[in-house]
Amino acid sequence: MTTVDAVTDEAVESLRNTVDPRLRELLAALIRHLHAFARETRLTPPEWENAVAFLTETGRTCTDTRQEFILLSDVLGLSTVVETVNGHRAPGATESTVLGPFHLTESPVRELGADIDLVGTGEPCVINGVVRSTDGTPLPGAVVDVWQADPHGFYDVQQPGVQPSGNGRGLFTADAEGRFRFRTCVPCAYPVPADGPVGSLLKATGRHPYRPAHIHFIASAAGHTPVTTHVFVAGGEYLDSDAVFAVKKSLVKDFTPTDDPVLAAEFGVPNPFRHARFDLVLERA
Amino acid sequence: MTTVDAVTDEAVESLRNTVDPRLRELLAALIRHLHAFARETRLTPPEWENAVAFLTETGRTCTDTRQEFILLSDVLGLSTVVETVNGHRAPGATESTVLGPFHLTESPVRELGADIDLVGTGEPCVINGVVRSTDGTPLPGAVVDVWQADPHGFYDVQQPGVQPSGNGRGLFTADAEGRFRFRTCVPCAYPVPADGPVGSLLKATGRHPYRPAHIHFIASAAGHTPVTTHVFVAGGEYLDSDAVFAVKKSLVKDFTPTDDPVLAAEFGVPNPFRHARFDLVLERA
Repeated sequence: MTTVDAVTDEAVESLRNTVDPRLRELLAALIRHLHAFARETRLTPPEWENAVAFLTETGRTCTDTRQEFILLSDVLGLSTVVETVNGHRAPGATESTVLGPFHLTESPVRELGADIDLVGTGEPCVINGVVRSTDGTPLPGAVVDVWQADPHGFYDVQQPGVQPSGNGRGLFTADAEGRFRFRTCVPCAYPVPADGPVGSLLKATGRHPYRPAHIHFIASAAGHTPVTTHVFVAGGEYLDSDAVFAVKKSLVKDFTPTDDPVLAAEFGVPNPFRHARFDLVLERA
Repeated sequence: MTTVDAVTDEAVESLRNTVDPRLRELLAALIRHLHAFARETRLTPPEWENAVAFLTETGRTCTDTRQEFILLSDVLGLSTVVETVNGHRAPGATESTVLGPFHLTESPVRELGADIDLVGTGEPCVINGVVRSTDGTPLPGAVVDVWQADPHGFYDVQQPGVQPSGNGRGLFTADAEGRFRFRTCVPCAYPVPADGPVGSLLKATGRHPYRPAHIHFIASAAGHTPVTTHVFVAGGEYLDSDAVFAVKKSLVKDFTPTDDPVLAAEFGVPNPFRHARFDLVLERA
């Protein structure tokens, strides 16, 4: 039977018949930390009830196109910790950052050079780069999944019927030299969805909900560990106060204003345009 | 910008404009423990995704009559920790235990001695006791809220249309000497709801879902701290392996088989019956 001091050991001990040793390890650590949190803070029953109500509301806010638990993990910095503790990246490999809550649909397969801005209201830009291994070898056939918000700061899945499905998304396959390129519009800073429980949490803690301008990437290639990352626009707002703690210096790149009719024609964009180079360097699995 | 070591400090520091100092304290502790959990276990992105899916499913399982987050807190032992760290109970005060997930409706007001078993299929029993202060003073007008499962192990809210609403529940007011009494059926051991994500968690960890037989109480009186507690049936199964870690020795009481036609008539129950005495001792607020 339970005494105040014994309950943690008792709860951990209750896991003794768990078949999967990793599950047992994770749950034991979770129980120890949850209990320590409640003890250190002397969490009161009304505070616990508020926490239950908050989690319930967070669950109620999740839909097929909205993931409030990922957003919660993001604004608490947990997603960044998970990304970073798993990054045994070899020197020179592209740093990872959070997945975020908007990778909810499959990106449409597109030809290299295609425009992912299906609406065309933003400032045109070109992103190109090479997917390579940390030893410098290009990775032909590497797959580059990209997604970004529109110039008003919304993803397609947030605005069904307003944005065409697949706007801001593309799945590209690198060419024989590992090169990829696509057209898009320059991303802008935007607030994370702030009309749900996570928004209330940000408000109660005096935090702004903004993320600095960025484009999401997942790059993968045979024999290599995939990387989930962003490219951030150098000089943009909120680089030092990202609501989800995802900015890493190595991921901030110049989106260089370029006035070059020849290059514009080569890239198939109106001149002038902006241009960012972002190589994706993967380590061997 | 974020580095692996800095993100915890950065996330805690982001709370600096929180108006409510207690909220800031709680969130800072939560962030530190969540991050430490992920670091210690080297939580992987797929494991994190499983956790997000689990929480989402837990949210989806909550309804007006089912609270899966409370159940989750219960089976992890967290609810018991919260109850016990808040128990600065004076010597002799009744020990608290968890609220559980079934205190979802208001208990119907009933006269002292009334039967809360509206179906009448169980073994009749009488519970009586005195609500008093730790100095021994009876507390007239104290309110005693009770709720329990039926003889098949289900609460009324779990079986709308099967059990009458309010079955197993009653809100009693103690008499001028602080006494309360009610009729019911002897409670039985029952499984917590095991068809949702918490049930899957119990299964994956080789745990049974049973709770030992009990009746829930919340006792409150002017000038005193309310107590949320249970009475457990002595000699019953699962007293040493309660799925929610809520058993305390002082709360286990004999439900004494009683063959006494005079007493039966006094209590208004068929003879023989079972009888438990459970005093509720509150400390001054």
